[in-house]
Amino acid sequence: MITQNQIKHVRSLHMKKFRDEHRQYIAEGPKIIGELITSKHPFVSLFARKEWIENNQALLASCGTEVIVVNEKELSRISCFTTPNQVLAVLRFPETYEISEENLKGVVLVLDQISGPGNLGTIIRTADWFGIKNIVCSESCVDMYNPKVIQASMGSFLRVEILYADIEKTLQELNGKRKIYGAYTHGTELDKIEKVKDPVIIIGSESKGISSCLEKYIHHKIVIPSRNNKVNDHAESLNASVAAALICYEFTR
Amino acid sequence: MITQNQIKHVRSLHMKKFRDEHRQYIAEGPKIIGELITSKHPFVSLFARKEWIENNQALLASCGTEVIVVNEKELSRISCFTTPNQVLAVLRFPETYEISEENLKGVVLVLDQISGPGNLGTIIRTADWFGIKNIVCSESCVDMYNPKVIQASMGSFLRVEILYADIEKTLQELNGKRKIYGAYTHGTELDKIEKVKDPVIIIGSESKGISSCLEKYIHHKIVIPSRNNKVNDHAESLNASVAAALICYEFTR
Repeated sequence: MITQNQIKHVRSLHMKKFRDEHRQYIAEGPKIIGELITSKHPFVSLFARKEWIENNQALLASCGTEVIVVNEKELSRISCFTTPNQVLAVLRFPETYEISEENLKGVVLVLDQISGPGNLGTIIRTADWFGIKNIVCSESCVDMYNPKVIQASMGSFLRVEILYADIEKTLQELNGKRKIYGAYTHGTELDKIEKVKDPVIIIGSESKGISSCLEKYIHHKIVIPSRNNKVNDHAESLNASVAAALICYEFTR
Repeated sequence: MITQNQIKHVRSLHMKKFRDEHRQYIAEGPKIIGELITSKHPFVSLFARKEWIENNQALLASCGTEVIVVNEKELSRISCFTTPNQVLAVLRFPETYEISEENLKGVVLVLDQISGPGNLGTIIRTADWFGIKNIVCSESCVDMYNPKVIQASMGSFLRVEILYADIEKTLQELNGKRKIYGAYTHGTELDKIEKVKDPVIIIGSESKGISSCLEKYIHHKIVIPSRNNKVNDHAESLNASVAAALICYEFTR
């Protein structure tokens, strides 16, 4: 049975402040929890509806954490969503590490001011698809442990290393060691730009673009070519997660 | 001044049932409304905060519709969003037309069971960017006049022709006249597949894929290659709007 203190604790993790304080976050739903159990990811705690437990005995046999049964009302109290989905886990933040050239393998995606949780989650999922292992987020990006980010990433948040950092310092550290590309509205077209091995690629926010203080570190400006010939009468820009996907696709070709 | 009847009418348009009945929908926010006025798009009615009106005199000079001033409380009553954004318009559905080979120009995107409003809106925006003029949605797709679709499309819903249809009938109509491609989890890799002029491309839902009844119309199955070499430990699929974007990018090259 879930205690009032547990309810209070899980609910506190809906807020970034308490996630940071406890260094814990929430993941929800059968798909993500199934992936977490299969990959032997440790839980702080695990709460589920009776029906889900009954239908997932084989899966749960490999789970090292005791499952606490919750009823519909209790689940809806601890869930971040208006339509809770059977199972919810509390997890610990992973250990963080220093950002250095040696710690970042292959293509590195740097995200500047990505504020939409759906966008960040989708970028994490796309990076995982294309085998990109490292994402560095500016402190102004949405929190990766925001429930909507976790949801949109569909479990990929477990497989991509995501760090929050002062990205100007990160670029200083990588300067001279890696080629740095940035997505802009003007530059060399994505399909024509010279692509190097292990690039650093910066994606800025849809509305504000890449912070101007970062421009001096960028060796190549990339533009995603619009193929709409109505020059002044088409979409002004692409969604940030779409832009990131097109760039990841081309740079991992 | 806004009347109680106007408030009631606009609020009714939050629901698909009443949008279909009145053949009217809502668009909100300075960006979209600015585009609508600039492109001389007619309004049924236009509601705005005093401050927005004062700051947009030049824009409003070219607007054929009288602006009705609303205060914060009134705007929040008629808005579809929890944080209303200064201006809201009611618009009429465009005229529909028959789907025929002659009416569909260039690349045609066919969407099957795309239920997420953010995904549909993003696909519309991406199609606009790549100069794709026609999208055919299955009746099971989310309503294109859903406020979140309008929002995510960022005004592109005005520039792309979007039709709802029985897509099996659409494919029957196009069969023999166009090459039909479908996005699958197995098939020929996107960068290797033979691309023809004016293809029809079907994108299915993330969870259910393309409806099995449509498979017999598909000439080429496309797969977006994952470049993650951890075969059994990476994202299972891409977000539908990301998959659509990668395919649109390659087919409009």
